Amino acid sequence: MEKNFHMAPEEFRRWGHAVVDWVADYQARVETLPVLSRSKAGQLRAALPSSPPTQGEPFEAILADMNRLILPGITHWQSPNFFAYFPANNSGPSILGELLSAGLGVQGMLWATSPACTELETHMLDWVADLLALPEKFKSSGPGGGVIQDSASSAVLCALLAARERATGFQSNERGCDGRLVAYTSPHAHSSVEKAAKVAGLGRENLRVIPVDERCAMRPGDLENQLAQDRQSGLTPCLVSVTVGTTSSNGFDPLHEIGRICREHGLWMHVDGAMCGTAAVCPEFRHIHLGLDLADSYAFNPHKWMFTNFDCDCFYVADRAALIKTLSVLPEYLRNQATESGAVIDYRDWQVPLGRRFRALKLWFVIRHYGVEGLQHHIRRHVQLAQEFARWVEQSKDFELMAPAPLNLVCFAHRAGDDFNRRLLERLNQTGKVYMTHAVLNGRYTLRLCVGQTHTEERHVRAAWELLQQTAAET
Amino acid sequence: MEKNFHMAPEEFRRWGHAVVDWVADYQARVETLPVLSRSKAGQLRAALPSSPPTQGEPFEAILADMNRLILPGITHWQSPNFFAYFPANNSGPSILGELLSAGLGVQGMLWATSPACTELETHMLDWVADLLALPEKFKSSGPGGGVIQDSASSAVLCALLAARERATGFQSNERGCDGRLVAYTSPHAHSSVEKAAKVAGLGRENLRVIPVDERCAMRPGDLENQLAQDRQSGLTPCLVSVTVGTTSSNGFDPLHEIGRICREHGLWMHVDGAMCGTAAVCPEFRHIHLGLDLADSYAFNPHKWMFTNFDCDCFYVADRAALIKTLSVLPEYLRNQATESGAVIDYRDWQVPLGRRFRALKLWFVIRHYGVEGLQHHIRRHVQLAQEFARWVEQSKDFELMAPAPLNLVCFAHRAGDDFNRRLLERLNQTGKVYMTHAVLNGRYTLRLCVGQTHTEERHVRAAWELLQQTAAET
Repeated sequence: MEKNFHMAPEEFRRWGHAVVDWVADYQARVETLPVLSRSKAGQLRAALPSSPPTQGEPFEAILADMNRLILPGITHWQSPNFFAYFPANNSGPSILGELLSAGLGVQGMLWATSPACTELETHMLDWVADLLALPEKFKSSGPGGGVIQDSASSAVLCALLAARERATGFQSNERGCDGRLVAYTSPHAHSSVEKAAKVAGLGRENLRVIPVDERCAMRPGDLENQLAQDRQSGLTPCLVSVTVGTTSSNGFDPLHEIGRICREHGLWMHVDGAMCGTAAVCPEFRHIHLGLDLADSYAFNPHKWMFTNFDCDCFYVADRAALIKTLSVLPEYLRNQATESGAVIDYRDWQVPLGRRFRALKLWFVIRHYGVEGLQHHIRRHVQLAQEFARWVEQSKDFELMAPAPLNLVCFAHRAGDDFNRRLLERLNQTGKVYMTHAVLNGRYTLRLCVGQTHTEERHVRAAWELLQQTAAET
Repeated sequence: MEKNFHMAPEEFRRWGHAVVDWVADYQARVETLPVLSRSKAGQLRAALPSSPPTQGEPFEAILADMNRLILPGITHWQSPNFFAYFPANNSGPSILGELLSAGLGVQGMLWATSPACTELETHMLDWVADLLALPEKFKSSGPGGGVIQDSASSAVLCALLAARERATGFQSNERGCDGRLVAYTSPHAHSSVEKAAKVAGLGRENLRVIPVDERCAMRPGDLENQLAQDRQSGLTPCLVSVTVGTTSSNGFDPLHEIGRICREHGLWMHVDGAMCGTAAVCPEFRHIHLGLDLADSYAFNPHKWMFTNFDCDCFYVADRAALIKTLSVLPEYLRNQATESGAVIDYRDWQVPLGRRFRALKLWFVIRHYGVEGLQHHIRRHVQLAQEFARWVEQSKDFELMAPAPLNLVCFAHRAGDDFNRRLLERLNQTGKVYMTHAVLNGRYTLRLCVGQTHTEERHVRAAWELLQQTAAET
């Protein structure tokens, strides 16, 4: 062996055990840590050397800094007291799948660059389609199929690109956008739809924001009117992006009615179920996907509410040929027999980046560890806990619900008005005992409690409710 | 504790140790495995159950399938006999950084969602700028700064988007592209530049492919002529994407001359140093970046040749305001005091996706473990090994160099012609003892040997050369 600075396999074994122990200890105590970091701006940077070290340091010193420097700057997304934004939950099997993926260090850009990476991904996306009872057309056995993207943001971008190309006979890819392409969404859609419209060259002004009803659902009549107007102006409508469980308030667009309009007008319907899609693991919640058979694409994130580390977004298309034709670029140095045989999938043509890591491993580990029953148990339980919290709010004289709470998100507010709620939220989060965030619904400042962290149990939700009442009394 | 199906911390500790042992054993024996997978199309899928399991399975069974099902389908990017495409090397400290990132499971979309995640990233990007002696303007202390992207593909897309907006007064974001934007690159640029031109709405036809000289370097005179012609046609040039170390042959575009033209015409110059940028860790190779002070953005991948797991692309901009203005979308539910104070960085505005994991950890671990000296030692050694191989080729009567070999990539061919070389490469890879890939240079089929896997030593390169001669004699 030549002289080297590498960590040898036996050293890796030793330090790997130490890091696993660190993570196990973290899991055991994360509940006791302040959920929202109390770090000040610049605090970590001020504690770090200004230049990289000339000579290597012992791993012991590096690991020690995890406690000393890093932990104080962590907002604990894996605390069972984390109720903010959306969950980004993980689990033991998922973390270990990620570790194996890092250890193998393969690239899955082509089938040939690691056949198992591609085939496990296709297989897992089919499993997940069964798990959620998605329409058959999204499975790889027909003309559709699924792929893992890093995020729902990238998924909606890919959907918009394929829609753009389908609407222009694949000419936008060749000649560029012409300023006449139009897409549609609702004011409650995720900000990634607007970002995608900008990135893909449509422009923000050409993303029509269709009004919603009192349940935050897109109004089909208004969509039809806008479509007619745009057609009359000689524009080229290409995509409608609808949401199953909006970020602010868990609103649901009417898939069936919007889907019918999309069919009639030849528009691509993309369905964003980033967080709530996971609910369809339980048969009793599958009504959220009624009408999904009319969609051209669908995305949801196991990395939100299905115990799988970020990043893992499942993106399905009904017509994979359209997506591949949109994103394929084949330089000489990537040519190979397997690709040219046409018998394999090359996932680089299903996404914007070329490189990709072996993300299907963690999904495989999670589904096998929990089984369908285990997943159903926990998803169902999270919904029950949110429903219980919503009932407490309804029965309270001080608080009120600000939107229906159909699943795991409760939007509520104290009756004392916006300023009070703003102060209340700040004080709550300063206790370190919980972390919640806000939205503005119908012009009113609204608190959000989202149940979805892996280890959240009734005692955590109950403690959050008690803390809320107590803090409100002191505000 | 409520009934649950989770892996408890103590179980995680036990199985975590087992998985670390699996990876350590893999590291110790990867050299003995056939580099290119011999799996047939559909082989893994045929061995998997067609539906997800109803009940959870023991972790032991899941881990056992790594050897039984997954390994035969792996092309071993971490084998020291891997000389294909580009390296995607990893290392012990990097894998452990990734494990901690998965265990913490934080989202780094905003500073507030984990201050340490953002601040460590900014700090590491500054360290890396020092490590490579990049121009000061790319450091966070001035108007520029760096961010981790998933890949160089995403980096060039972000550069093109910012260039597009700067050239149109930020109007493409608003009104969409108008078919008049033009960008420039060389025929040897990575395929991601063409992909970006399509994604960003410019279109393939509006990506001008400027001819190269005999060293595969873009001809500045031809760029100037094309620019003048496009201006005269009323088009809007916005970006020139140049390469430091092309994928096919390690060609270098003349940064200084192209940069001067970009300055003169107000164009954004993006520099793609995906693999070769790492060479600048060694002072003797820093000449590859001469002229980089004229660039508006720069990207290179520690996940290629700097012992850091995919994904980790370092993307630098000279004017972060332009990038942020291009990609920022601020919905109510992401508003927070830290963001509004203006005192912090929110990296979601520096990339296409919203979510992001804690990727700076692995970079921190790698730099601290190796130190500047350790990194220099190994990069230098890889270049030496490639240079040695190139000398053997030059001294051989049967083989010849097909391009200069300035760093760690050797492009060569047997003198017996294209068909022979095609058969030779196939036979070589079928032995399982090495994996190389090809390019076509000046119309001729060319073999590529790229040295960059972490554990590649002289004995591996020597064995590859001997195998080549022996296989050629039998072909």
